[in-house]
Amino acid sequence: MFNEMLNDKIRNKRTLVCLGLDTDIHKIPGVLLSEIDPLYEFNKAIIASTHEFVAAYKLNIAFYESLGIPGWELLERTLSIIPSDTLTIADAKRADIENTSRKYAETYFKTFNFDAITVSPYMGMDSVAPFLEYEDKGVFVLCLTSNAGAQDFQFLQIEEEPLYLKVAQKVLGWNFLYGNCGLVVGGTHTNEIQEIREMAPELPFLVPGIGAQGGNLEKVVKYATDSFGLSALINVSRSVLYASSEANFAEVARERVKNLRDQINRIINVQKNPGLIDQN
Amino acid sequence: MFNEMLNDKIRNKRTLVCLGLDTDIHKIPGVLLSEIDPLYEFNKAIIASTHEFVAAYKLNIAFYESLGIPGWELLERTLSIIPSDTLTIADAKRADIENTSRKYAETYFKTFNFDAITVSPYMGMDSVAPFLEYEDKGVFVLCLTSNAGAQDFQFLQIEEEPLYLKVAQKVLGWNFLYGNCGLVVGGTHTNEIQEIREMAPELPFLVPGIGAQGGNLEKVVKYATDSFGLSALINVSRSVLYASSEANFAEVARERVKNLRDQINRIINVQKNPGLIDQN
Repeated sequence: MFNEMLNDKIRNKRTLVCLGLDTDIHKIPGVLLSEIDPLYEFNKAIIASTHEFVAAYKLNIAFYESLGIPGWELLERTLSIIPSDTLTIADAKRADIENTSRKYAETYFKTFNFDAITVSPYMGMDSVAPFLEYEDKGVFVLCLTSNAGAQDFQFLQIEEEPLYLKVAQKVLGWNFLYGNCGLVVGGTHTNEIQEIREMAPELPFLVPGIGAQGGNLEKVVKYATDSFGLSALINVSRSVLYASSEANFAEVARERVKNLRDQINRIINVQKNPGLIDQN
Repeated sequence: MFNEMLNDKIRNKRTLVCLGLDTDIHKIPGVLLSEIDPLYEFNKAIIASTHEFVAAYKLNIAFYESLGIPGWELLERTLSIIPSDTLTIADAKRADIENTSRKYAETYFKTFNFDAITVSPYMGMDSVAPFLEYEDKGVFVLCLTSNAGAQDFQFLQIEEEPLYLKVAQKVLGWNFLYGNCGLVVGGTHTNEIQEIREMAPELPFLVPGIGAQGGNLEKVVKYATDSFGLSALINVSRSVLYASSEANFAEVARERVKNLRDQINRIINVQKNPGLIDQN
């Protein structure tokens, strides 16, 4: 079961940090541009310098797909150098009718062998089921996203409950099948995270929106983790990857990730059942 | 403006048929398997035999993506042989936070130069805006999908209106920007199509669910087209592509598509303002 395995990883590595590899040729340090494959060199350096402190790498598929064939090669090569004690998440936000979702599931779970994927809930259960059937893989369903557009539909009230809670409720049901569902919950909505955590006390949350998008870390960690300070991955991307545009970018990223890991663990030690995640 | 351009194409070619190229190695005729590139040969034969009768080809990205790099090459080669009087739709159902949607928009509108794309509404306006900004490209937003899972969220009632109508309403607003929004409306929901058409009298509808999924053609055409019998693309995929598993597959596909085109045009001639689409 993915969800148990996720918590094992978090416990073993003592970190909730997820690092988003939103690798962008326009943002990587200029010093890399003379390399034969600057994007790969960037990912390689970032992974080498940060893997000790991260529970998972989230690869934003758009950034690879937009490069065409070299992008898929980059994806493959990047996955091959991520250490096996660190999870890999395809941030793909896919989902379609059943026969089509089956193809997407094949792509990410078989061809690329990701540990988890993000999917969109709009088309409902049968569009997500082909992903769930890979029992040892995780499926993070969009619940409440970190962007402004979340207001358009996710907050619509249905019998005095917002749509995002209806989604959380359904996903809770889907999780009974194989114990491999999670929720994407944006770090910019701290009160709502608490509400969603109450509804789904044990589902893993993937929380973007810290860092460049400005979410409040203390509240996010407090509300997004379960009662043991587990079941959450706190994602950062741009604010770590592009913290330095100089040759020392990988060291700066390492410092940022380490600090974030330590901050998160401190918050957990104060707020939650201490000892399960020790502060290093 | 995409929506006007779409109706020009429909008028010029006198067809509402959209053919989905869900090309699958497990389903193409065995006679092709000895070719060097069976999937490309299949698409080439299907396009050559059907383009006269179709307004658009819809390429289901999952079927290409799942093949890895050869799949993206197949996508590129297939697009290069679609005649310019026929539209191309990337059935991708993407959408993400703004900087990520921008990458997806680049991929499909710049790199591959598709005429239109399908997107998921769940993340709201700012997740769709990067697609809309390509003013001459079309953006079909999922509204009411043809699968069973549509029941899970799309029918939830918000102030006595289902979510799919809230989506239609929003998309109507987004369309004011550049006149390039459409809706994906499943052909399995004939009553609801009528309701959505009343709310959005002029938005183009992309209607899957005829054929293998079993929607009722007469009602679909009557309700999905606008008052002139325009603004709709009626999609078929599997029921045409795999109608024959013999060497004559392309001719059989041609017959099927021609018949569908004729049936649709007959329905329009009876139901709508005649003369705008003549029956050939």
